Amino acid sequence: MNSLGRHFRISIFGESHGPSVGVLIDGCPAGLPINAEEFEAELSRRRPGKPGTTARIEADEPRIQSGVHNGRTTGGPIAILFENGDVDSSSYEKIKDTPRPGHADLTARTKFGGFNDPRGGGQFSGRLTVGLVAAGAIAKKLIAPVSVSATLETVGGDENVEAAVENAVAGGDSVGGIVQCKATGLPAGVGEPFFDGLESAISHAVFAIPGIKAIEFGAGFEAGRMHGSEFNDPILNAEGTTATNHAGGINGGISNGNELTFRVAVRPTATIGKPQATVDLTNGEATQLEAKGRHDACIALRVPVIVEAACAIALCDLMIAAQKTPRVMGN
Amino acid sequence: MNSLGRHFRISIFGESHGPSVGVLIDGCPAGLPINAEEFEAELSRRRPGKPGTTARIEADEPRIQSGVHNGRTTGGPIAILFENGDVDSSSYEKIKDTPRPGHADLTARTKFGGFNDPRGGGQFSGRLTVGLVAAGAIAKKLIAPVSVSATLETVGGDENVEAAVENAVAGGDSVGGIVQCKATGLPAGVGEPFFDGLESAISHAVFAIPGIKAIEFGAGFEAGRMHGSEFNDPILNAEGTTATNHAGGINGGISNGNELTFRVAVRPTATIGKPQATVDLTNGEATQLEAKGRHDACIALRVPVIVEAACAIALCDLMIAAQKTPRVMGN
Amino acid sequence: MNSLGRHFRISIFGESHGPSVGVLIDGCPAGLPINAEEFEAELSRRRPGKPGTTARIEADEPRIQSGVHNGRTTGGPIAILFENGDVDSSSYEKIKDTPRPGHADLTARTKFGGFNDPRGGGQFSGRLTVGLVAAGAIAKKLIAPVSVSATLETVGGDENVEAAVENAVAGGDSVGGIVQCKATGLPAGVGEPFFDGLESAISHAVFAIPGIKAIEFGAGFEAGRMHGSEFNDPILNAEGTTATNHAGGINGGISNGNELTFRVAVRPTATIGKPQATVDLTNGEATQLEAKGRHDACIALRVPVIVEAACAIALCDLMIAAQKTPRVMGN
Amino acid sequence: MNSLGRHFRISIFGESHGPSVGVLIDGCPAGLPINAEEFEAELSRRRPGKPGTTARIEADEPRIQSGVHNGRTTGGPIAILFENGDVDSSSYEKIKDTPRPGHADLTARTKFGGFNDPRGGGQFSGRLTVGLVAAGAIAKKLIAPVSVSATLETVGGDENVEAAVENAVAGGDSVGGIVQCKATGLPAGVGEPFFDGLESAISHAVFAIPGIKAIEFGAGFEAGRMHGSEFNDPILNAEGTTATNHAGGINGGISNGNELTFRVAVRPTATIGKPQATVDLTNGEATQLEAKGRHDACIALRVPVIVEAACAIALCDLMIAAQKTPRVMGN
Repeated sequence: MNSLGRHFRISIFGESHGPSVGVLIDGCPAGLPINAEEFEAELSRRRPGKPGTTARIEADEPRIQSGVHNGRTTGGPIAILFENGDVDSSSYEKIKDTPRPGHADLTARTKFGGFNDPRGGGQFSGRLTVGLVAAGAIAKKLIAPVSVSATLETVGGDENVEAAVENAVAGGDSVGGIVQCKATGLPAGVGEPFFDGLESAISHAVFAIPGIKAIEFGAGFEAGRMHGSEFNDPILNAEGTTATNHAGGINGGISNGNELTFRVAVRPTATIGKPQATVDLTNGEATQLEAKGRHDACIALRVPVIVEAACAIALCDLMIAAQKTPRVMGN
Repeated sequence: MNSLGRHFRISIFGESHGPSVGVLIDGCPAGLPINAEEFEAELSRRRPGKPGTTARIEADEPRIQSGVHNGRTTGGPIAILFENGDVDSSSYEKIKDTPRPGHADLTARTKFGGFNDPRGGGQFSGRLTVGLVAAGAIAKKLIAPVSVSATLETVGGDENVEAAVENAVAGGDSVGGIVQCKATGLPAGVGEPFFDGLESAISHAVFAIPGIKAIEFGAGFEAGRMHGSEFNDPILNAEGTTATNHAGGINGGISNGNELTFRVAVRPTATIGKPQATVDLTNGEATQLEAKGRHDACIALRVPVIVEAACAIALCDLMIAAQKTPRVMGN
Repeated sequence: MNSLGRHFRISIFGESHGPSVGVLIDGCPAGLPINAEEFEAELSRRRPGKPGTTARIEADEPRIQSGVHNGRTTGGPIAILFENGDVDSSSYEKIKDTPRPGHADLTARTKFGGFNDPRGGGQFSGRLTVGLVAAGAIAKKLIAPVSVSATLETVGGDENVEAAVENAVAGGDSVGGIVQCKATGLPAGVGEPFFDGLESAISHAVFAIPGIKAIEFGAGFEAGRMHGSEFNDPILNAEGTTATNHAGGINGGISNGNELTFRVAVRPTATIGKPQATVDLTNGEATQLEAKGRHDACIALRVPVIVEAACAIALCDLMIAAQKTPRVMGN
Repeated sequence: MNSLGRHFRISIFGESHGPSVGVLIDGCPAGLPINAEEFEAELSRRRPGKPGTTARIEADEPRIQSGVHNGRTTGGPIAILFENGDVDSSSYEKIKDTPRPGHADLTARTKFGGFNDPRGGGQFSGRLTVGLVAAGAIAKKLIAPVSVSATLETVGGDENVEAAVENAVAGGDSVGGIVQCKATGLPAGVGEPFFDGLESAISHAVFAIPGIKAIEFGAGFEAGRMHGSEFNDPILNAEGTTATNHAGGINGGISNGNELTFRVAVRPTATIGKPQATVDLTNGEATQLEAKGRHDACIALRVPVIVEAACAIALCDLMIAAQKTPRVMGN
């Protein structure tokens, strides 16, 4: 099922080159002020434009179909569409039978028996994350004053992000990146033991973003190399404030009132100009692919706002479960 | 909700010092041969005994209450209990008001308003993972010939695991570890785009294991430092066999037919003999805690079979969804 | 959550006088032939036009946004919109503060703190059932050769349906009806014991249709007056064919291979021209309401195809769970 | 899945002649006082003993395995077992291959490929409703001061219940009954439009009780014969109090603050002493069955408390969703 959440449920839909992509948001309480223009600040952070991002530029105008009346949520499901305007399917016809290494081309074909829409990655396209960002914008308002913020830390292992991207573009290559994310203001007590713990919920949401291959909370992998006397965060007061934050704000799956922190790795874009070894599915023979379609050289540049959205959506679901969301009005 | 899965659903329950802990397994097809003794091979891998593991030894005898008749599953929910026998609650009374740094003591108290069972970590105890292992044993049989295997890679950053553990024990300390896991034989086409992707499902399950702070699939964090020309796995044939496996066997959330690989970080045990700074909740003043309870110095030693279980359970759910589990009999 | 189903999941959204209403269908396998025109046969049965139905006529043109490519399902979620064209909100302004007896006006206002869209019943409008019918059209194709058929049995207790409706219209009144529904070709073994039994699943879906107040399977209420020797259906052969069908084709929540039968009661429309006692919410005083909006005098006339849709959707979900749906292609 | 509910989730398990039957209750807030003895009042109402009920008498002693500490809920899942003591499987061996008309014997066998436990109805046994009643006892405490009350209205169409039962017993027959149920004190605003409406949720839960074949809310089937001017309940004040209650306290799936009312039909017991036509599954030939097992002549006698439980569980789930349950402590 392409949906997430039990109390605040997000369902995304659409194909890259179909009429539109969109999101259905269920479980949003009534009375929350919603303004289509408000989405723009979030959506613009995801939109390409910078060097290293795709030449496909979409207006990303949210078309709210339901759930909002007189500028406020009605308590009903909120359906938002984004039309696909700048569509050029020409370059995809060629690669239909030469699956891109590192891409979902071949798994999509296998899974859906060849009935998937191959244009632009179809239902696997990063284009669908526009719905995630829109849902994230609403989730952020619901969980306020909790604030979620993600930034791009490094690209290709280099802290000079611009140079690293330029370098990849110049070589007809792509490059990965590391994004860190923080949530401040999160009250203690959000999350549940075991299966609905914060790490489970956030990682579930974050790995739904195409290209994420790793996540670590707090000290993360370094925790696997530490001793308890180093790792354990000394508790300073009855509110649970800690001197360090190796736990990333989470104990036993539950927020401890400190800052929630995690980092994710974004793989380099699959589509690159350099020749790559693949197979011609029409005859099963080895071939070379030099991709020509419009694509990002570094999707990590556009990922931070999507990570924020995924995190906010996961938090919103667990905060409603824990009845820790300031109520707006009825639900 | 302390349950996981939509088609093969696991619910775990119990407190460390309550009458029993257990698991309820729903969605298992009828006709699968089940033998209580078969669980023993799995459970013994989780059981303490080695240096660096807790002195609390439980028989872990599975008491199957339902869902099995004449040695085969009936198609009904399978309830399995494990009695808590070797219980010593004495040491926990002292720490009731001095929460252990790095532990869920304080978040549990905050979340449940002090009504949680504090003895032995209560419902947050690693003791509950015995149910996960039992469910994993069944999941492994259902997904066969897919085979899941996890091993402890390093402890405290050291490949000499025994020495690293001894060193920690000698210092009254604990130590973390890194576990790698592989699934072989997984057919292509398991997992779904976005929210039900393999990384989402597996990470959700794996982070439910107490003490896991990080996960990476395939090249993982290294992917964030690579160029596409390095990272993208060359496709060798129409079956999707790749020359390298940086993707960890997953493209677009879906298995590509190669080996599925991931690594996780296990933090050091919170409970250590060394003095740690914490707070006395009876008066809010700073204090020192020197834990005396029986505990593991390195839970990573016991984690591999639990990671296997979590992975097998997640795979089983998605394989049933994709109708890729060899049917046993009716469901 | 405004969604139904675990394997074949339907989510409906929209408000009566919003831009559009629609449905999101998740879990439909890839490769099913879909033609927007095919919906027309189903939608036309729901559309008003006959005496006793509302004057609001919508084109009900399905605008498929996703999940269909080259005339077949892609395996992705299918989003279908229906624009709201023939909207006249003028009459609703008056009744905003004088809730209609028998209608959701007041409960909607209470629940959503007045933020609900009151125009045309907002998210409570029968208009939303157009999405149900569209989803039902797809469900029917998936469960074929199982065939679901509902007919209007009586109106106002009268088998002469036309006369009963005319009589109500002439009196400025509305009138209820009884609808019967049958599913033929259903294989034995669909449904699960207890919570996912056929009666539970079908009644859950059917009561989602506005105006349904009762459901009975097989002999239904009469079963409460019978002896076992009358009620129990004699079994004629090993396939489970029975001589009578008081069970309505269901034993223990599971299909027994005989025809599945049930009947539902549709209450009369709440909105009537006759004066009704209600309250003026602006001052809390008693008042009279004579509704002027366009409305059906007998919604039962339009309900059969919606009951079929609800039944087909519920069956589809359970048939996929039981792996009894002929597979189309990948999922 | 043998579970129900999204916020207050009940899972039942067990077979009639297995070691135990039980229930797992998830989502119960922490701090609710729980006393095993308290269950007795509820359980005794379900227990046989009166004329027309089975000779199998179980102690029904609830063995709470988890989720309760120091007499209060911990916030963790509550697992409750009931041992099966008074088991006599002898009579079932004979009927293993001669399925009882009106019973799930044959559908169970078909569905589960013969791997189901046939003794005493196995997982289809009414014995499993003991877990429902236990869960209902907790749900009732959570929704207080809402009060749910069900009574047996008629048996075999006769208001003289005792005489009707005696008559059936004397004839070696069984007999059905009608049960009515009311919930008082339910605040307005519980339930959601369409799929999570009160009728959907309650009917889903109630039809999980073995033997229920019909349900009607408020005027029910009579609503299908009425005019709007009769059916619509006049609204008396701004709180939504109505002069009549044909809607059964529900408008648009949402409670309107009046009494919630519904009636259900319970079919006669399938197992009767009178000869019934069935098939011998060993050779496919017609045969006669005269059941000898211990059974109820009128299960309707024991159903009211189970209907109350199902209703309370459904209400509890929706009340938590609507945040209308008085909070006990953390969750």
